Amino acid sequence: MNSALIVVDMLNEYDHEDAEILVENVRAALPALRGLVERARQEDTPIVYVNDNYGDWSAGRPEIVERAIAGRARDLVEPIVPADGTWFITKARHSIFYETQLEYLLREQEIERIVLVGQVTEQCILYSALDAYVRRFTVAVPCDAVAGIHSDLADAALRMMERNMRADVPRAEDCALS
Amino acid sequence: MNSALIVVDMLNEYDHEDAEILVENVRAALPALRGLVERARQEDTPIVYVNDNYGDWSAGRPEIVERAIAGRARDLVEPIVPADGTWFITKARHSIFYETQLEYLLREQEIERIVLVGQVTEQCILYSALDAYVRRFTVAVPCDAVAGIHSDLADAALRMMERNMRADVPRAEDCALS
Amino acid sequence: MNSALIVVDMLNEYDHEDAEILVENVRAALPALRGLVERARQEDTPIVYVNDNYGDWSAGRPEIVERAIAGRARDLVEPIVPADGTWFITKARHSIFYETQLEYLLREQEIERIVLVGQVTEQCILYSALDAYVRRFTVAVPCDAVAGIHSDLADAALRMMERNMRADVPRAEDCALS
Amino acid sequence: MNSALIVVDMLNEYDHEDAEILVENVRAALPALRGLVERARQEDTPIVYVNDNYGDWSAGRPEIVERAIAGRARDLVEPIVPADGTWFITKARHSIFYETQLEYLLREQEIERIVLVGQVTEQCILYSALDAYVRRFTVAVPCDAVAGIHSDLADAALRMMERNMRADVPRAEDCALS
Repeated sequence: MNSALIVVDMLNEYDHEDAEILVENVRAALPALRGLVERARQEDTPIVYVNDNYGDWSAGRPEIVERAIAGRARDLVEPIVPADGTWFITKARHSIFYETQLEYLLREQEIERIVLVGQVTEQCILYSALDAYVRRFTVAVPCDAVAGIHSDLADAALRMMERNMRADVPRAEDCALS
Repeated sequence: MNSALIVVDMLNEYDHEDAEILVENVRAALPALRGLVERARQEDTPIVYVNDNYGDWSAGRPEIVERAIAGRARDLVEPIVPADGTWFITKARHSIFYETQLEYLLREQEIERIVLVGQVTEQCILYSALDAYVRRFTVAVPCDAVAGIHSDLADAALRMMERNMRADVPRAEDCALS
Repeated sequence: MNSALIVVDMLNEYDHEDAEILVENVRAALPALRGLVERARQEDTPIVYVNDNYGDWSAGRPEIVERAIAGRARDLVEPIVPADGTWFITKARHSIFYETQLEYLLREQEIERIVLVGQVTEQCILYSALDAYVRRFTVAVPCDAVAGIHSDLADAALRMMERNMRADVPRAEDCALS
Repeated sequence: MNSALIVVDMLNEYDHEDAEILVENVRAALPALRGLVERARQEDTPIVYVNDNYGDWSAGRPEIVERAIAGRARDLVEPIVPADGTWFITKARHSIFYETQLEYLLREQEIERIVLVGQVTEQCILYSALDAYVRRFTVAVPCDAVAGIHSDLADAALRMMERNMRADVPRAEDCALS
């Protein structure tokens, strides 16, 4: 089954409410996340960054990257800045699928399985896993490459994905990318 | 704000996996749910039944009602059978919004707030609350008029709705309908 | 390629503006249309009726059929009344795809090609052909099994479908159904 | 009614089939189109560029602008290059609405009327007008600020928009922007 690695909302200024605890959790997930990005490159697995535009409808990759680097957690952004030529889709309303080009991209590329990494486990990751499941994509969510804010809700979200959305929730090192 | 009461998946044969515990929880939620339906009728609040077609693309209201009554929990179905003339939408894939006519109906009727009742709290109710929130509808989920399967996930789902989807989660008797 | 025959808006009371000329054109298209429905049944090609609900959100197949038969052109309705068990989807806003379950049904059934028949050539048929093309379905529109209102616009619509939406526009008798 | 000016597919390399005749027609429409963009700026009417990404999922505004300028009709591109800070949405499949963020943007900004300019009259402009109409936006298409390929189909498209999609089809100089 053709897979793609989807990097969700990692370009973040971390200036919102709840950012402090999120920063800690993203820092913990970053090594596993970077490992998956690196492995996807080596294995020629398509990588798609899907990132909120934070309400600025003129912002594309350059602006979103620049602002994230200038934000409160440069060390969490620089290691995963998408290279020129990376597939990049902006979103405005939580889910990576809601009124974005992602489903069309995936179907055009004949991708049937997505590996979701990034943030926030009990918010955009959960919503995106759901929207992928509803659209009949196969979903994997490496549990150590996603970051939540509230650990109990993040745990519940992972169990919902596994039980009700048939997602695979492996450790990153055990997650197939192709 | 114009409100509508949405009755989700209450026409059910209860013959699937996990049905036994669900039946118990639906039985507990039924009085509050019926009370809301009755109150909506008295207050002229629009009521919309949205129900899975269980994979039968020829099934509409008559077939879905008939089969539910013939199923394993007639006592949970008969009290809430929709009358002739009730607005009725079928769904095929969990969320009440995913590839259904519901959003169009709500906007055409200038309804900005939905009150969600029915089942399953940590599945279709959660997904529908999310899809409503993403589409900028105001959401209320009366906590004693929805039924879950796994109580820990159902509780987490209600907290997610309240915290992350700005849903109101009152008791049914405290839930405004208009 | 798996095909389905889609019968669009043939359950019609014909009481709207422009109905008179439409009735004439539907009468002319009916034999070819019926021939395709008959052939689809014999060849086990899936048939889906997609029909406007004319703004009545409580109406399903029984109500829509009943009202069409009671309308101004019973002779155009009775010959194509869908049998019990026919796949049936209501629509509210012109296109057979816009906020309906049709795309999900087609993908679930692994249908990649649709044959569009019915009315109105330069309106719902054109819009539906477009939405099918955008979603990468293969489209055929048998030119003698669709009915328009304004012949110049209907002709232009068929040319748009053929030229810009890569639709096949054969005569009904030459149109493959499987 | 709040309006927005939507500039469709004007960032074009003009290297496809039919480009030659399109170039002539875009050249004819450019003064009226530029006049509307200039007027929208003066009147503080929101402007949104919606442009095909031509299948490159890494391309945003900078890449799409650069390639269009390097294409076959620099003189048709340079006069309407969007300034930094312009609202910009990419599309992949003809309509400005199909799986893009545009509807969400318009609703968030409380825009109820769109003025469509650009290309191609009988393709993306027609499809976008239809999708706007289906979504209940009010539509204006200034007839001298859009460019077609086949004049008979372009004329039919404008008549379809006017008659069947309730679009206003004024000359640019008579087209209200707010």
